[in-house]
Amino acid sequence: MKAINLERLSWKAVAAYLASDSRIILPVGSTEQHGRFAPLGTDTYVATAVAEGAAQTTGVLVAPPLWFGWSPHHLVKPGTISIRAEILVEVLSDAIGSLAEHGFKNFVVVNGHRIVNIPWMQIAAERVQRTLGVKVVLFDPAYMSKEVAGTLGFGPIGHGEEIEISHMCHCHPDLVRLDEAADNPHSETPLYHLDPQDPRDTLCYVPATREGLQQTFEHTGDTITGCPSKATAEKGRAYHDHLVGRLVQVLEMLKGD
Amino acid sequence: MKAINLERLSWKAVAAYLASDSRIILPVGSTEQHGRFAPLGTDTYVATAVAEGAAQTTGVLVAPPLWFGWSPHHLVKPGTISIRAEILVEVLSDAIGSLAEHGFKNFVVVNGHRIVNIPWMQIAAERVQRTLGVKVVLFDPAYMSKEVAGTLGFGPIGHGEEIEISHMCHCHPDLVRLDEAADNPHSETPLYHLDPQDPRDTLCYVPATREGLQQTFEHTGDTITGCPSKATAEKGRAYHDHLVGRLVQVLEMLKGD
Amino acid sequence: MKAINLERLSWKAVAAYLASDSRIILPVGSTEQHGRFAPLGTDTYVATAVAEGAAQTTGVLVAPPLWFGWSPHHLVKPGTISIRAEILVEVLSDAIGSLAEHGFKNFVVVNGHRIVNIPWMQIAAERVQRTLGVKVVLFDPAYMSKEVAGTLGFGPIGHGEEIEISHMCHCHPDLVRLDEAADNPHSETPLYHLDPQDPRDTLCYVPATREGLQQTFEHTGDTITGCPSKATAEKGRAYHDHLVGRLVQVLEMLKGD
Amino acid sequence: MKAINLERLSWKAVAAYLASDSRIILPVGSTEQHGRFAPLGTDTYVATAVAEGAAQTTGVLVAPPLWFGWSPHHLVKPGTISIRAEILVEVLSDAIGSLAEHGFKNFVVVNGHRIVNIPWMQIAAERVQRTLGVKVVLFDPAYMSKEVAGTLGFGPIGHGEEIEISHMCHCHPDLVRLDEAADNPHSETPLYHLDPQDPRDTLCYVPATREGLQQTFEHTGDTITGCPSKATAEKGRAYHDHLVGRLVQVLEMLKGD
Amino acid sequence: MKAINLERLSWKAVAAYLASDSRIILPVGSTEQHGRFAPLGTDTYVATAVAEGAAQTTGVLVAPPLWFGWSPHHLVKPGTISIRAEILVEVLSDAIGSLAEHGFKNFVVVNGHRIVNIPWMQIAAERVQRTLGVKVVLFDPAYMSKEVAGTLGFGPIGHGEEIEISHMCHCHPDLVRLDEAADNPHSETPLYHLDPQDPRDTLCYVPATREGLQQTFEHTGDTITGCPSKATAEKGRAYHDHLVGRLVQVLEMLKGD
Amino acid sequence: MKAINLERLSWKAVAAYLASDSRIILPVGSTEQHGRFAPLGTDTYVATAVAEGAAQTTGVLVAPPLWFGWSPHHLVKPGTISIRAEILVEVLSDAIGSLAEHGFKNFVVVNGHRIVNIPWMQIAAERVQRTLGVKVVLFDPAYMSKEVAGTLGFGPIGHGEEIEISHMCHCHPDLVRLDEAADNPHSETPLYHLDPQDPRDTLCYVPATREGLQQTFEHTGDTITGCPSKATAEKGRAYHDHLVGRLVQVLEMLKGD
Repeated sequence: MKAINLERLSWKAVAAYLASDSRIILPVGSTEQHGRFAPLGTDTYVATAVAEGAAQTTGVLVAPPLWFGWSPHHLVKPGTISIRAEILVEVLSDAIGSLAEHGFKNFVVVNGHRIVNIPWMQIAAERVQRTLGVKVVLFDPAYMSKEVAGTLGFGPIGHGEEIEISHMCHCHPDLVRLDEAADNPHSETPLYHLDPQDPRDTLCYVPATREGLQQTFEHTGDTITGCPSKATAEKGRAYHDHLVGRLVQVLEMLKGD
Repeated sequence: MKAINLERLSWKAVAAYLASDSRIILPVGSTEQHGRFAPLGTDTYVATAVAEGAAQTTGVLVAPPLWFGWSPHHLVKPGTISIRAEILVEVLSDAIGSLAEHGFKNFVVVNGHRIVNIPWMQIAAERVQRTLGVKVVLFDPAYMSKEVAGTLGFGPIGHGEEIEISHMCHCHPDLVRLDEAADNPHSETPLYHLDPQDPRDTLCYVPATREGLQQTFEHTGDTITGCPSKATAEKGRAYHDHLVGRLVQVLEMLKGD
Repeated sequence: MKAINLERLSWKAVAAYLASDSRIILPVGSTEQHGRFAPLGTDTYVATAVAEGAAQTTGVLVAPPLWFGWSPHHLVKPGTISIRAEILVEVLSDAIGSLAEHGFKNFVVVNGHRIVNIPWMQIAAERVQRTLGVKVVLFDPAYMSKEVAGTLGFGPIGHGEEIEISHMCHCHPDLVRLDEAADNPHSETPLYHLDPQDPRDTLCYVPATREGLQQTFEHTGDTITGCPSKATAEKGRAYHDHLVGRLVQVLEMLKGD
Repeated sequence: MKAINLERLSWKAVAAYLASDSRIILPVGSTEQHGRFAPLGTDTYVATAVAEGAAQTTGVLVAPPLWFGWSPHHLVKPGTISIRAEILVEVLSDAIGSLAEHGFKNFVVVNGHRIVNIPWMQIAAERVQRTLGVKVVLFDPAYMSKEVAGTLGFGPIGHGEEIEISHMCHCHPDLVRLDEAADNPHSETPLYHLDPQDPRDTLCYVPATREGLQQTFEHTGDTITGCPSKATAEKGRAYHDHLVGRLVQVLEMLKGD
Repeated sequence: MKAINLERLSWKAVAAYLASDSRIILPVGSTEQHGRFAPLGTDTYVATAVAEGAAQTTGVLVAPPLWFGWSPHHLVKPGTISIRAEILVEVLSDAIGSLAEHGFKNFVVVNGHRIVNIPWMQIAAERVQRTLGVKVVLFDPAYMSKEVAGTLGFGPIGHGEEIEISHMCHCHPDLVRLDEAADNPHSETPLYHLDPQDPRDTLCYVPATREGLQQTFEHTGDTITGCPSKATAEKGRAYHDHLVGRLVQVLEMLKGD
Repeated sequence: MKAINLERLSWKAVAAYLASDSRIILPVGSTEQHGRFAPLGTDTYVATAVAEGAAQTTGVLVAPPLWFGWSPHHLVKPGTISIRAEILVEVLSDAIGSLAEHGFKNFVVVNGHRIVNIPWMQIAAERVQRTLGVKVVLFDPAYMSKEVAGTLGFGPIGHGEEIEISHMCHCHPDLVRLDEAADNPHSETPLYHLDPQDPRDTLCYVPATREGLQQTFEHTGDTITGCPSKATAEKGRAYHDHLVGRLVQVLEMLKGD
C-alpha cells in the first residue's frame, strides 16, 4: 500500500512529494440521512473510496475528507449535518489556498454528495483558479458514470437508490442493512428530469424542501427515492471501478500541467 | 398587448393582480461579451424575450430584468460587467423576499446566462424556499431545449454559438452583425462535455479562465465557441417558440399552487 | 441616433470607444411604489432618461440600468423590490470594478431614487476611488435642480410629487394616470426639512418606516407626499432639460481627466 | 451636575432611569487629523460636548462615545484611525440593539464627524427602526446650524475651518494652537457645493481621496479647508449654544414617544 | 504630565512622535453591568488607567479607548452594550491597520474586560500580524497578575469581585458604592476553574448565559460573582502598580523592535 | 464495540438514540505540520481517540471529525491546511445548529489543536447557547491535563512536544518516527508563559508568525517546540486514560441536563 493520505504523512514527506508532483485529491461528502438502511456518512465514504482507489494506482495524495456538505433538506431526519453553501465556498477556498501556498497546483475535488454540493464547489473553484492560478476539476460520480449507469441497469438518480447503495455494498457492506430498505420508485415530475442521462427538457435543480421529504416519509416510511432493493455489491464494484478508472484518467491528464 | 411588466404598473394594479394570481417571472441575464458580432446584452435580451413571450400568453407579470450576472471569465473583453456569485445570491434573495412580502408565492427565474448563473441561483432559491415558504423554479434555455436542439441542427452549447445567435436573430436582428462572425468549432476536451444533451461522462462545469479565453482570442480572433455562421432567424424562432411554450407549461403547473 | 447603450454594443465597439473615451454613465433607480397613478419603475425611468439625454449629446456610453434600489419603507405597497443597502454597495463596487478593468476611468452614477440611494452609493464610490484609482461622481436630480426647482414652482421634495411626476409626464406620459392622483400636501415636521433648498436647520434623513407610510395611506388613500396634481409635461420638460444640461456639463468636466 | 454619563452609572441607576425615560444620546465622532493646530479627537470632543450640554438641561443619559468614524481620506496624516463604513453600520446597530433590549426606545445619534459619518448611520438607523421598532434621529451640527452659520459670519463648511475650530476654542481651548494654523480658503469646484446652505446645484458628497488631500498639503502646508484664523471662542460659544438648544428641542420632541 | 493621549494631539505632534517611537497602547474595555454598586464603564476605566499609568512612565502614546466589548451575557441588566465578537475583530483590525499606515509597528492592546474579550482580540491580532507585519501583544490584567493576586489575598476571578472593585476603589473611588455591594462567594463548578492561577483541570471558558445570570440575580439580588466587600483602595493600588509595572516592562521589551 | 460513530449509523438508529440521550461529542482537530517525525493529522487523531475512548465507556455518539482548524502559522511547512477563524465559527455553529434541530442538547467539543482553536470555538459556543438554548462545553487536552502533566514529567506545552507525541505513540505508533525527531527545548520568552500550569504572569496567546517558525526551522532543522525525544507510549497511555476519564466525567455531568 502506498502512503497516500496527507494526514498520515509528515511535512517532510509532503515536501518530498511536491518535488515531483503538484496534484492532490480532496474528497468532499456529507453527513446526511440515506434512509433507514444506510449510514449517514454514505457520501463521504464513497468519495473517499473513489479518491483512495485512484490514489493507490497513481500515487497522488488524498487530503482528509470534509465530512460536511450542504444538506438543508435532509435535516428532516436525525443525524444530518448541513453547513450553509456560502460557508462551504469559504472552507474549500481556504483549503485549496493553503495547499497552493505549498506548491500544489492541480486539485481534483471528488464529490460524494452529487448535485447538491456542486454549486458551492463551482463558486470556490472559479475563485481560486482566478486568484491563485491553480487548476481545479470537479469530479462527481453522477456525471462521471453516464456511460456506465445504463449498462449496469441502474434507474434514474435519486437518493439512497440502487446506485449509491450498490456502491456502498461494495465499499462498506457492513454499514448497509438492505433488509430494512423499502423502494420508492422514481415518480415523474413534469419538466423536472435531473438525471444527467435523461434526454428530456428539464428545469434546473433546486434542493427539495423538508416539507417535500416529510411527505415522502409519510407515504413510504422512509426519505429516499429509488430502488435500493436492486442494489448489489457486484454492480457496485463495476460502478466503483469505472469511477476509479475515470479518476485515474483525470489525474493522468493533470500530470503534465 | 397585456400589461405584463411590473415596472410599468402602479402598486394598485399589482394589488389587483395579486387578488387572483401569485406568480411572477424574474428574467436574469448578464452584460458580457458575446463576440465581436453580438451585443453585450445578449443574455438579458433572450431571458426577457422568453419571459415576455410567455407572459403575453398567460398574463403572468414579469419583473424588471437583472442586467448583471456572474461573468468573471468574460472580463477578458471590454464591456463585460461581472458581479460576484456570492453577492448575486443576496440580490436574488432580497428581490424574491420583497415580492413574497406582497403575496407573490410562485417564482420562475428565467436565466439567459445559462450554466454560469445557475450555481448562485440554486443557493438563493433553496434559501427563500426554506425561509419564506415560496416556490422557486429555475428555467434555463440550455436545459429546456434538450428535446429540440438536435432537431434544429444545433451543435453543442458553447458561447455566442448558433443557438443563442439564432435566438438573437429572431428577437433582435438589428443587434447582430453575422457578417463579422467567425466560427470557432467546438473542440473536444477529454472528459469535459458540458452540453446537457451529451451522453458521455463529464467533469462538472467550472467557468473558464481569462487566460483560456485570451488563448481563444489569439487563435481565432474572437472569444466565442461554436458556429454562429450557422445561425438563422428561422431556427431562432423555432427555438424561441419552444422555450416560450415550455415556460407557459411551467406557469400553468404553478397556477394551482 | 448615436449608439449609446452599452448592452447594444459588441465588445469590439466598446474597445473602439475606449480608444478615445474613458467615461460611462450608470443609471440606478428602483422598483418601488409611486402612488396609485405612477409606475413602480418611475425612478429607473427618470434616471435612464436623463442618462440617455446627455449621452445623445455627448456620445458617452450608458450602462444597463440597475432596476433595484434600497426601498425598505416602500415595501408597504405591492410591487416594491428592495435590496439591502449593504448588498447594493457590493453590486455597484463590482460593476464599476468590472468596467475599470477594461479602461473606463470616469464614472457618473445617475440616481433616480434620490436621497435613499445615496448612502450606499457614497460607500461604494469611496471604495472604488481608493482601491481602483478611478473617479466617481454621484449625480442626483434632487441636488442638481436646486437652482431651477423654485423657478418651476415646485414645492418641496416628497415622494411621487409634482417634480418627479412632471418628469414622468414628459418622459413616459403613457405610464401616468394623473386622474387617479390625490394630493398629500407636505406637512411640516419640526426640525426635519430634507429638501436641499430648505434654509432651515434639519435632522438628517432616515428612511420612513412602513408604519409611517401605512398611516399616510390610511389618511390619504395613497402613499405619496406632495402635489402630483400640479404636475405638467411642460414643467417636466424644463426640469428634464435642466438636468440633461447639467449632466452634459459634468461629462464635459470629466473629459480631460 | 446631573449624573448623565451611562458609563458612570450602575445598572441599578439605569433601571431607575428607564422607569420614567426611554431616551438616550449616542455621541459618535472620529479620530482624524484636523490640521497641525487642532487635536485628532476634535469630532468626538464636539459631539460629546453638545451631547452633554443637552443632557445637563434635560437629564437624558449619554452613552460612551464612539471615538472612531469613517475617515479613509484623512489617513493621509498620522494619527487618523478609520473604520470601514460597513463595519460601523454593524457597531451602531449592535449598540442600539443592546440598549433597546433594556427598554430604551428613542435614540439621538450626535455626529461630530459631519457628512462623512452620515451614510453608515443612515443604514444602521433604518435597520434598527425596522427590526426593533425604535426611533432613531441623526443630529449633525452641519445640518443643525444652517440658520445660525451665516449670522456668525462663518464661511462654507470645509475641514478644520472656522466653524469647528471656533467650537473647539469654546469647548477645549487648551487643545487648539491657533498660532500654528494657516488658512486654506475654500476654492470653488464647479457643480460641487456641499455646504447645505449653498443654494446652487451640486453633485453628491464622496469623500476626498488621499491624493487630493496630499495635494492640499503640498500647496498649503496642511490638510484642512477653510479659515481657522477666523475662529474665536465667542463664536464657538454661540454656535455651541445654538446646537445644544436644538438638541434640547429634539429631546423634548421625543419625550412623548 | 506628558502628552500621551493620541486624541489630544495634532497630526504634527504624532508625526514628531513617530520619528523616534513606533509603539502605541490601545485600551479596550466594555460597557457592561458590574453589579448595583459599580459603574457600567468599569472595564474601560481600568484598561485606561493601566494604559495611562504606563504611558506616563514611558512616554508611549495611548489611543482613544474602545468603550464597547463582547458582553452578550451581561445584557441581562440594563445599560450593558454588547457588540458581536465577529464585528469587534474587524474594528480592531481596522484600528491597527490605520495606525500601521502611519508607521506604528508595535501595539499593546490593554484589555479591561478580561477573558471575554480575548478570543476576538486573538483573531484580529493574528490577522494584522500576518498581513501587515506589525507586532501585537495582548495585555490582560487577569493573566498579568497571577504572581500578585495571591499575595494580595484575592479570591478567584469572578465578576465585580474584590479584584476589579479594589482596582476601581483606587482609580475611581467616587464611582463605587461599596455599601450597596453584597457578596456572592465563588461556588465550585466541577471541572470548570477558569482562574488562570487555579492548578486544577478545567474546561475552557464559554460566556455565561443570561439565564444563568438571571438565576444569580434571583438568588443573590445582584449579578456578580465574588466578594466585593473585601475590596480596598489599598489593595487596588498595589494591584494597579503591579500591572502598570508589567506594562512598562512590556513596552520596554518592544522598544528595540 | 458499541456503535458510537454517527457517520456509521442510519437516521433510524440516531432517532432511537435520541429517545434516551441528547449528548454528542464533536472532535475537532487540524491538518498541520507536527515536525518531520509526526503526521499532519496529529491533532485530529488525538481528538478522535479521546472522543471515541469516552464514547466506548458511555455510549455517547461521536460526530465525524472536522479535520481542519485554524493554523495560519503552520502554513510555513507543506501539508498544513488552515481555515480562517471567522469561517470556522460559522462551520461549528451550523454543525451544532443542525444537530440541535434533531433534539441533541448537550455538546462536547473535543479540541485536539489546543489553544489555537479555542477562540473561534468560544465565539461559536456562545452564539449557539444563546440562540438555540443548547449547552456546549469545550474540552481541551491542555487544560484538562493540568493535574497530571507534572506527574508524568512533561515539560511545558509547545508544539510536537513530548506530550502530544507520547499521546500519538500510544494511539498511532505507526505514524510517528521518533528517530527523526530533534528536540527544541522550550526557551523562555519574558512575560509569555502560555502553559496553563505556569504560575507566572503572562501576556495572552497570539499565534506565532510564519517568520518566527521559519527562524525556528533555520535554527533547529524543524518547526516544533519541546522535547519529543522524551515521548513514550507508556506516558501517552497514562495521559490518554486521564483525558478519557475526564471526558467520561464531563459526559456524566451532562447526563441529567
